Amino acid sequence: MTESGKNVIKQELRRQRIETPSWAYGNSGTRFKVFAQKGVPRDPYEKLADAAQVHRFTGVAPTVALHIPWDKVDDYADLARHAAELGVRIGAINSNVFQDDDYMLGSVTHPDPAVRKKALAHLLECVDIMDRTGSDTLKLWFSDGTNYPGQDDIRARQDRLAEALAAVYERLGDDQRFLLEYKLFEPAFYTTDLPDWGTAYAHCVKLGPKAQVVVDTGHHAPGTNIEFIVAFLLREGKLGGFDFNSRFYADDDLMVGAADPFQLFRIMYEVIRGGGYTEETAFMLDQCHNIEPKIPGQIRSVMNVQEATAKALLVDRDALAAAQREGDVLGANAVFMDAYNTDVRPLLAELREEMGLDPDPMAAYARSGYFDTIATERVGGTQAGWGA
Amino acid sequence: MTESGKNVIKQELRRQRIETPSWAYGNSGTRFKVFAQKGVPRDPYEKLADAAQVHRFTGVAPTVALHIPWDKVDDYADLARHAAELGVRIGAINSNVFQDDDYMLGSVTHPDPAVRKKALAHLLECVDIMDRTGSDTLKLWFSDGTNYPGQDDIRARQDRLAEALAAVYERLGDDQRFLLEYKLFEPAFYTTDLPDWGTAYAHCVKLGPKAQVVVDTGHHAPGTNIEFIVAFLLREGKLGGFDFNSRFYADDDLMVGAADPFQLFRIMYEVIRGGGYTEETAFMLDQCHNIEPKIPGQIRSVMNVQEATAKALLVDRDALAAAQREGDVLGANAVFMDAYNTDVRPLLAELREEMGLDPDPMAAYARSGYFDTIATERVGGTQAGWGA
Amino acid sequence: MTESGKNVIKQELRRQRIETPSWAYGNSGTRFKVFAQKGVPRDPYEKLADAAQVHRFTGVAPTVALHIPWDKVDDYADLARHAAELGVRIGAINSNVFQDDDYMLGSVTHPDPAVRKKALAHLLECVDIMDRTGSDTLKLWFSDGTNYPGQDDIRARQDRLAEALAAVYERLGDDQRFLLEYKLFEPAFYTTDLPDWGTAYAHCVKLGPKAQVVVDTGHHAPGTNIEFIVAFLLREGKLGGFDFNSRFYADDDLMVGAADPFQLFRIMYEVIRGGGYTEETAFMLDQCHNIEPKIPGQIRSVMNVQEATAKALLVDRDALAAAQREGDVLGANAVFMDAYNTDVRPLLAELREEMGLDPDPMAAYARSGYFDTIATERVGGTQAGWGA
Amino acid sequence: MTESGKNVIKQELRRQRIETPSWAYGNSGTRFKVFAQKGVPRDPYEKLADAAQVHRFTGVAPTVALHIPWDKVDDYADLARHAAELGVRIGAINSNVFQDDDYMLGSVTHPDPAVRKKALAHLLECVDIMDRTGSDTLKLWFSDGTNYPGQDDIRARQDRLAEALAAVYERLGDDQRFLLEYKLFEPAFYTTDLPDWGTAYAHCVKLGPKAQVVVDTGHHAPGTNIEFIVAFLLREGKLGGFDFNSRFYADDDLMVGAADPFQLFRIMYEVIRGGGYTEETAFMLDQCHNIEPKIPGQIRSVMNVQEATAKALLVDRDALAAAQREGDVLGANAVFMDAYNTDVRPLLAELREEMGLDPDPMAAYARSGYFDTIATERVGGTQAGWGA
Repeated sequence: MTESGKNVIKQELRRQRIETPSWAYGNSGTRFKVFAQKGVPRDPYEKLADAAQVHRFTGVAPTVALHIPWDKVDDYADLARHAAELGVRIGAINSNVFQDDDYMLGSVTHPDPAVRKKALAHLLECVDIMDRTGSDTLKLWFSDGTNYPGQDDIRARQDRLAEALAAVYERLGDDQRFLLEYKLFEPAFYTTDLPDWGTAYAHCVKLGPKAQVVVDTGHHAPGTNIEFIVAFLLREGKLGGFDFNSRFYADDDLMVGAADPFQLFRIMYEVIRGGGYTEETAFMLDQCHNIEPKIPGQIRSVMNVQEATAKALLVDRDALAAAQREGDVLGANAVFMDAYNTDVRPLLAELREEMGLDPDPMAAYARSGYFDTIATERVGGTQAGWGA
Repeated sequence: MTESGKNVIKQELRRQRIETPSWAYGNSGTRFKVFAQKGVPRDPYEKLADAAQVHRFTGVAPTVALHIPWDKVDDYADLARHAAELGVRIGAINSNVFQDDDYMLGSVTHPDPAVRKKALAHLLECVDIMDRTGSDTLKLWFSDGTNYPGQDDIRARQDRLAEALAAVYERLGDDQRFLLEYKLFEPAFYTTDLPDWGTAYAHCVKLGPKAQVVVDTGHHAPGTNIEFIVAFLLREGKLGGFDFNSRFYADDDLMVGAADPFQLFRIMYEVIRGGGYTEETAFMLDQCHNIEPKIPGQIRSVMNVQEATAKALLVDRDALAAAQREGDVLGANAVFMDAYNTDVRPLLAELREEMGLDPDPMAAYARSGYFDTIATERVGGTQAGWGA
Repeated sequence: MTESGKNVIKQELRRQRIETPSWAYGNSGTRFKVFAQKGVPRDPYEKLADAAQVHRFTGVAPTVALHIPWDKVDDYADLARHAAELGVRIGAINSNVFQDDDYMLGSVTHPDPAVRKKALAHLLECVDIMDRTGSDTLKLWFSDGTNYPGQDDIRARQDRLAEALAAVYERLGDDQRFLLEYKLFEPAFYTTDLPDWGTAYAHCVKLGPKAQVVVDTGHHAPGTNIEFIVAFLLREGKLGGFDFNSRFYADDDLMVGAADPFQLFRIMYEVIRGGGYTEETAFMLDQCHNIEPKIPGQIRSVMNVQEATAKALLVDRDALAAAQREGDVLGANAVFMDAYNTDVRPLLAELREEMGLDPDPMAAYARSGYFDTIATERVGGTQAGWGA
Repeated sequence: MTESGKNVIKQELRRQRIETPSWAYGNSGTRFKVFAQKGVPRDPYEKLADAAQVHRFTGVAPTVALHIPWDKVDDYADLARHAAELGVRIGAINSNVFQDDDYMLGSVTHPDPAVRKKALAHLLECVDIMDRTGSDTLKLWFSDGTNYPGQDDIRARQDRLAEALAAVYERLGDDQRFLLEYKLFEPAFYTTDLPDWGTAYAHCVKLGPKAQVVVDTGHHAPGTNIEFIVAFLLREGKLGGFDFNSRFYADDDLMVGAADPFQLFRIMYEVIRGGGYTEETAFMLDQCHNIEPKIPGQIRSVMNVQEATAKALLVDRDALAAAQREGDVLGANAVFMDAYNTDVRPLLAELREEMGLDPDPMAAYARSGYFDTIATERVGGTQAGWGA
């Protein structure tokens, strides 16, 4: 790597933005058990404070996604001010139509029109909150689906879904968009109403440019080539962003890059090659930690994305294109792997120092004493968690 | 089918025994939401009452598995008497070493000896409860495992597991056994300490005849041939029983036979062919219903196992063996499918009438008014559920 | 089932049409070994003769798909006449751009424009053959893809694919269409250029109404809900047809309905419910038998589709809709399963007799002596097989 | 890394031995097409010559596995001498009971005793060849299995398998062993008779110390944790070795480390941690290249194993153990990842120079002109390939 090549890469890395989710700072778990941790935030204000720590030590995580109703407050302007004071901003608004008793058999695809109406009202309320917080992105995930063959009409549920999405789309302001999420399974176990990228894509194409697909890296069937999807959606102008996390078999909350760092590198390569490495693409973490300490888990995840990005930026695109043109299978693969096999941590340490940060964010956070402070101070109240 | 052939099959079906789990009658859900239902039991006594309904209408579900500590009572003799009055008995004792805060990183395989000691004490306590309830079967499921590579030492955890199992084995009485469960994933997401039948088998072989493997039909990797495992374990004398349920991708709580009834038939065929259709093999349901009404969900599941068994009994074994000997691929498959394609519901209806039961257990339960009674009467108190 | 209900169902079954593939009658195998069988056809004329046997005994398989160049003849009009004399017709034309040495790294997506040009010429030649045979359907399957990350540019290959598809689309006559096939993997092992329905769909939408998606039931990742895809494509007017076969883990040549008959029933239900049970939808077998006798393998497969269809027609749609509206999870599932659990073989036997056929096509074929004839007569020449 | 630490690691790497398979140098392909390559060997002598090139440039591949009957020669002593002259030795003998017409429905598990007898005779012949070549290892892979439920008796096939294995075991000399391979699927698609490690393990335990399990990294169901299996088999003293290759979904012939380099690192870590990094464990490549040039494909694969091993040796075991003991989830993972993220290529280049080799084996081979020589000289004759 030449010095000037290195500088170009550092320039690119310096403008990277990774959003962390407010819910990552609260307690979470599996259906078997939620293990409570010390120092967990009791309200959205404390969540933002924790998120600000991630930005403080990494320098690339300036926004925080909210989850409604978990992060409902009376005064969103005040919450936004609080964020600004902490050096962060409010990012995407995430809707929740899965935790009310009415949603047992679905929300916007529920057979009962009254439930659908209620769910839609919530989605529209989320756009209201976008207006008030200045957020430009609504993330829509639906737990809707069925557990048994015959339980409900697969096709009618698509009609209902289309209707709800159209109503939300209509409500969006000029500078707002929504990102539509898909997921193979869970909590619905026979069908989900948005099981794959194709379904999300088809709905978004019909709606228009303000509807885009979000790729959650943990939401695919085994054997799915995620970077292909990324390349394809970018070609179609429909990649809105990422929910990053990782999984071995079927969780979607492990730290991004922890299960298959090579896959994350391949994804970031397609992002860059496809012109998606811009602020139009939302790079978000969507992962809750069951056994990991919360803030360090997010810091490590941000670093993992940075490292994959640095490696992807390192790919010698000219050499790669030449080998590809010649049908040199091993040569092209070697160019690709050369970038992946490079240890980019020194480069990132250097960049951090140039940005006035500690070269080792994990160690710096550990030394900061922040955890001891929150563990001591956050006593009483109710710890935030899924469902609260 | 000749009349005498039919009678033989009915005789076999008449002696079938399927155990239902106490926890199926309480609330359960996914990590996203537990939807509470009306009429749910508040204590083990009420759970037994509900289980007795399943037996009342099916005639083949006379035992109920308990889960400790969820079903802890002061006086187990009293609980057993209560069961007897309801016409049922207490079946397998299920241990729980996954819901205490100490078990975040494991129970019997935890790196900390103090936690391991506590977990072992619980397992031994479960044997005490077996002594007091007269139960002869302990079911051991461990949520133990790791979420990240390097998190703990895979091999050391096997040593710790072996140590705990040996201690429990040692404690078993002459007429007691334990069934060791394996599971591919969840709640541990990188490794589980008992991920597959091979691991459970290897531990059981070393321990001796009182340790056997239990096959949970929902706990395998995609593409796994479960009936092969059943055939193999029976050949080795190590099949202790089943935890029945079904799944499409990755739940393990849908009604048995709901996702792939053909698979259930193939499993029951291997049970019968391998000499496992005896009371030595425990046929247990292990499924909790998130959106289904509890008691009907269990009744339907029992019926699904009955239907698969009836079809498996119908296989013309002589014709099958002849076709297999001749290498007649399509002929052998045709003999097998002929049994599967037969509608055995009339046969089962007939059998039920001969047993003094209503031919349609679902309809009979619905008509019985039991649900209205419990929905009305079970007010106040705390509904049973996972973790309670 | 009332007599009039039965008649309606028989009427529907009577007009069913299932196409068999010419290549199913030749030898095939795995990469490990092709086992040659007796009596295998030596040319397209003999393949049609065998296909005619399937129609003779089932009455619902009047068309035969051709594969070019395997079925190249000098005089297609003569071949068509030959078919007519046998009582069958030529169905879909299947292109082959995977068996020439030039296609090692792809055909229409190959990095070398000369190879792409050659591949496109073959596709256009297939349309010529459609003109000459009167076939209205071109089936496009591409083995194109890569084995290693970096081997070729994922996105550029999409551009090349789009270009080729547009050229073929342009060449289609007014009454012609193409069906675009997708496949998760094989023979490409890292990416295929058409890995899933979403990719095929997106290309087809851009091209127009003469481009439709074909669902090969064996081409999906584990856990994929195929009937959802069917329902969705029908809603979009983009389901062109099926390549039927089945698989447990990763073959796609077992007899349709053999691995998961319940899944086939669910698929056929969505076809009917979605208005796809018309002659606009091509119901094709695409399966080659490695160890099964060829003609009986096809007869059994046709029968399996018939049985699944009969069960799907049996679903009490009013009762189902009512249960779904009420959110009656178990009730709706029970209506659905009631149809699946019915033994429809007597109904089909009756129908066959009404159609002047033997009620048992497998037995009738076995008795016909056809196999002995071909085994005796087809001596010398080169047996047809993949690649010949 | 200290200089002395580095030296220890280099010492370990210097004694690494990786065996290449004779069949990797011939043509191979998928069921769709075998693409012939230039310069491919025409006989076992030429295969050994190619294998010697891999050793020449890597220094760690001194043995070559043979496949019988593909590598049958009249005079094995002569073949062994030829190998010695080339600087290599004959390694494991691989049996083949899948390519004779008799084996369509199985070999040692075939329903017909005559076929079983023939298959067993071949296996015993392989031991004869071991005697003559001095090979101490027999690798047993069986394609045996069934394609359809009911096709044959799952359990009877186990009895037949056990019988054949016992006969082979009996025949082994004092310093000989066999390695038993398992495979989830292919070419059998419903069941294989050795589908998983548990089955192979159970057979080997019964037979004794000369029977061990070989782990083919491409033969598992999705989601299987292979390093767990490695750790477990080492704990039981039953890990005989590896067949290395890689796959994304369902091939097993891509270059080892190409699909998931992190997984290969984790496997090598468990090998070392479990005491398996000795000459008792056979580290073999088992991969044939469809589109890659043969010799470079093997060189790259050897290098991939070396790099994974170097990283695994780098793990700071003391620091890891300390973090594990403390239950420091992120800390333990960080120690592990630190080794993985290190670029070990400079260390390996240094080692090669110390061994008198070119630091870049791929480039050195390319410069050597060997390929041009064989492409020119190997004209006429029949290229080696699967089945020849």
